[in-house]
Amino acid sequence: MTAPLSPDNSPRIAVAIAGASGRMGRMLIEAVLTSPDLQLSGALDAPGNPSLGTDAGAFLGRNTGVQITADLAQGLQGADVLIDFTRPEGTLAHLALAAERGVGVVIGTTGFSDAQKVQIRQFADKTAVLLSPNMSVGVNVTFKLLEMAAKALQEGGYDIEIVEAHHKHKVDAPSGTALKMGEVIAEAQGTQLADRAVYERFGHTGARVANSIGFASMRGGDIVGDHTVLFAGDGERIEISHKSSSRAGYANGSLRAARYLARQKAGLFDMYDVLGLK
Amino acid sequence: MTAPLSPDNSPRIAVAIAGASGRMGRMLIEAVLTSPDLQLSGALDAPGNPSLGTDAGAFLGRNTGVQITADLAQGLQGADVLIDFTRPEGTLAHLALAAERGVGVVIGTTGFSDAQKVQIRQFADKTAVLLSPNMSVGVNVTFKLLEMAAKALQEGGYDIEIVEAHHKHKVDAPSGTALKMGEVIAEAQGTQLADRAVYERFGHTGARVANSIGFASMRGGDIVGDHTVLFAGDGERIEISHKSSSRAGYANGSLRAARYLARQKAGLFDMYDVLGLK
Amino acid sequence: MTAPLSPDNSPRIAVAIAGASGRMGRMLIEAVLTSPDLQLSGALDAPGNPSLGTDAGAFLGRNTGVQITADLAQGLQGADVLIDFTRPEGTLAHLALAAERGVGVVIGTTGFSDAQKVQIRQFADKTAVLLSPNMSVGVNVTFKLLEMAAKALQEGGYDIEIVEAHHKHKVDAPSGTALKMGEVIAEAQGTQLADRAVYERFGHTGARVANSIGFASMRGGDIVGDHTVLFAGDGERIEISHKSSSRAGYANGSLRAARYLARQKAGLFDMYDVLGLK
Amino acid sequence: MTAPLSPDNSPRIAVAIAGASGRMGRMLIEAVLTSPDLQLSGALDAPGNPSLGTDAGAFLGRNTGVQITADLAQGLQGADVLIDFTRPEGTLAHLALAAERGVGVVIGTTGFSDAQKVQIRQFADKTAVLLSPNMSVGVNVTFKLLEMAAKALQEGGYDIEIVEAHHKHKVDAPSGTALKMGEVIAEAQGTQLADRAVYERFGHTGARVANSIGFASMRGGDIVGDHTVLFAGDGERIEISHKSSSRAGYANGSLRAARYLARQKAGLFDMYDVLGLK
Repeated sequence: MTAPLSPDNSPRIAVAIAGASGRMGRMLIEAVLTSPDLQLSGALDAPGNPSLGTDAGAFLGRNTGVQITADLAQGLQGADVLIDFTRPEGTLAHLALAAERGVGVVIGTTGFSDAQKVQIRQFADKTAVLLSPNMSVGVNVTFKLLEMAAKALQEGGYDIEIVEAHHKHKVDAPSGTALKMGEVIAEAQGTQLADRAVYERFGHTGARVANSIGFASMRGGDIVGDHTVLFAGDGERIEISHKSSSRAGYANGSLRAARYLARQKAGLFDMYDVLGLK
Repeated sequence: MTAPLSPDNSPRIAVAIAGASGRMGRMLIEAVLTSPDLQLSGALDAPGNPSLGTDAGAFLGRNTGVQITADLAQGLQGADVLIDFTRPEGTLAHLALAAERGVGVVIGTTGFSDAQKVQIRQFADKTAVLLSPNMSVGVNVTFKLLEMAAKALQEGGYDIEIVEAHHKHKVDAPSGTALKMGEVIAEAQGTQLADRAVYERFGHTGARVANSIGFASMRGGDIVGDHTVLFAGDGERIEISHKSSSRAGYANGSLRAARYLARQKAGLFDMYDVLGLK
Repeated sequence: MTAPLSPDNSPRIAVAIAGASGRMGRMLIEAVLTSPDLQLSGALDAPGNPSLGTDAGAFLGRNTGVQITADLAQGLQGADVLIDFTRPEGTLAHLALAAERGVGVVIGTTGFSDAQKVQIRQFADKTAVLLSPNMSVGVNVTFKLLEMAAKALQEGGYDIEIVEAHHKHKVDAPSGTALKMGEVIAEAQGTQLADRAVYERFGHTGARVANSIGFASMRGGDIVGDHTVLFAGDGERIEISHKSSSRAGYANGSLRAARYLARQKAGLFDMYDVLGLK
Repeated sequence: MTAPLSPDNSPRIAVAIAGASGRMGRMLIEAVLTSPDLQLSGALDAPGNPSLGTDAGAFLGRNTGVQITADLAQGLQGADVLIDFTRPEGTLAHLALAAERGVGVVIGTTGFSDAQKVQIRQFADKTAVLLSPNMSVGVNVTFKLLEMAAKALQEGGYDIEIVEAHHKHKVDAPSGTALKMGEVIAEAQGTQLADRAVYERFGHTGARVANSIGFASMRGGDIVGDHTVLFAGDGERIEISHKSSSRAGYANGSLRAARYLARQKAGLFDMYDVLGLK
């Protein structure tokens, strides 16, 4: 497939999208279509999905010339990078063929077993793979800020609390991102989160346990995801917050990852690599 | 005691302070001394307290002419109103003599038994008494705002969450004020808090229970007391917050209560009476 | 047009949408299609619009049987209520025919001249009309909360500040909603906003002017609209916030208005009527 | 002067306080008296000050044995470090004698002319001097976090806004700390604040200027000082906040600075040195 040139005359990066008719898939397709340096080269969905055979841009009222297919070989045809937010088994099947063809894979899928993670690492010997539990640029920068704050405020008696808010449909608490924040902080201070986490406060709790990291969760409405970490000292507080108002942050991060992978031959990467935060 | 006139030539209100050497007592004394319409007429503290016999303004480097005393009759001498943030037994003893002499009593003490509350009501037949678990003007206005919001947002699927933050020394959660907020909201919607409260969220919680009221508590540093109630709907949130940065709000509210009681003969009042919120 | 019954066997309310292919029009169509008590009866757009003749649900991949039309009579056919977020001239033309036919009109359009408002009032003699600069339930409840807070906190030295944040494309400051908040507050305190507003602070400003109402505006990203009013007293703050995360709040409010108008014969109403806040 | 040993048997650091009867001086004295590793060795105030000759702990009802004096030689007697939050001329006079005697000086005074800063640098050849416009640990850590965030979020279209809130008596806007935050951010992105700052928004402002840094100021009540920097992207925001609830943060930072200087022979230092943030 000969992609048209991007505005600066470099060839456009050809991107295939898995899960093309899903919520995240559509957001990714829209983001690719509005990026002058990217080109939509393929769109995959599961066998039996009603979207198969329709144009990948139909939901936008656009004709992209790319049909949604369940044929993996067809979907990866001409792709530089595949972006995949689906399910572990599907993602591994996609990865197998992508590795054979040298197509980079941005993996936004979560829930891999340890054995599956070993497989991913093996495929990464053959092609460039990005694996990240959270693709948002902002969330990853926030992790890095928390690491620095946790080190700088280790002395001086700063109490650390993590509060998060999500929509009413969320079934677990605290959020995975909140837990990851706790791990980043605990590790930055040379400790383990398990030794410091306080997940519930109710009734006669006694005074706050020194060096603990407290978690609090709010649920309501359609809140996409807010996280705030509080460092409370004597007469002052520092707060570091990340607030999502849409899934656009995940799509944007995925595209930055795709651009990064297009420049790599092989290897396993994460968002810190993409963002130069290592 | 002939109090000097206040700036508008009306007589100053004579105020006695119980617990005069404590943290709240000192804040009250300072507030009285800086109010042109008030006059410090007496200062009480418990027998054996090292402050007895010293000037009530000594902690400010001021000579007020009022000595701290454990003699109740002397402490109430010339008072229009007594402000009392001490302990239930002490407060009841003060109230007995105050009722006899027609001195109004602002009660900021907490922890009364039901039997003690009956006694307070009886004394209130003889003198004006204000009883409030929270003397802050702002907190009481916030209760009223929550009542209105709870009614206006009862339809339309607004999820209600209450989050509070306090200093690391606090031994219970949620705070009494947060619980009171929950009660105000539940009652405004014709329900009981006990049927709706969710005090803990950890692990696999399942989706949010419809019509529940969630609580979350943060602890750290020297935070005096923050409370936020979230009404989370579809695409929008309303938040009502009260944030204390010092105990000045309690002192100010107590003084407004004292001015109100000075105009009443007898009866049991609360801060809604003082603030005209009924 | 015979609308199917709603789940409780009452007839569905038939709703027509003006500006059907626009951002707000599409959100309204989607909201109507997912409301069991409502039925989409017509869809209007301007002559020459490329959407004319297509199905009103095409953008969702749905076939609703309602085609977008520029023919006003056809668009209003069978409608109980028209929801109109377009432009003043268009809205007035729609209103003329709607008044003749007894179709209620929810007007979300802004920018009417005084003469045009007179015309709207005249049409409201013949049919039910709702006119509101902001259709969001939450924003209107917030106005009411501010009215109460402004009265309750008029004494006691509470300083009032209004801060708002909007996306980077917004071309004016403060937002219309922020100004309306200021007006509601000023009026509740028996004053005029013009006498109290401070719109800019830069350089040597001097101490805060007593009784002023300060405004501050932030612009960035794709923030839909956040407003916070601060009542700052001695040792405490009360904050009342409204935060929009999508335009869903406007669509929801419009639908509540449509249900309300369907029960009225004629008259000019606002969101306080719809929400029972008068 | 032979100071008693601190709890770990190392000698206590002897600290003198200038401006001993002022608000900041008293807070520093109280902080020194409650620090087991520090010892109050002297207390200075200006000639004619009514506190001269009284015990430096009288405002706490404590007898420290240290009298407030206007005699510089007496005030510095036995001191390892002087903490000075006074006025430029006074500070320079104190510094001259301190440099001669090898007493370290923590300078919290602000408003030095360029010529005076040259003098300070010369004294720093002889003794250890710390000069910082803001002594708070939290504010300095916040500057460092902003530097990192500004670099990490330079790409990707993040709009930067700085909002601050202070008490009603503050006479300038934005605050010096907010301006410093803007400088830290602009510099981290290889730019000048002067080329990017937007200090006022009112009326028809037009869309947000790309790459601008906006400032907004709120004034009210007795707010000690809140600062928030917003990085607003597509579908997400990062916020970094510092909130002061008392001047304790300045006192704590000053004491950390004093401990640091006690270990240095000479040189000019800032809070980044003290906190290991360089």
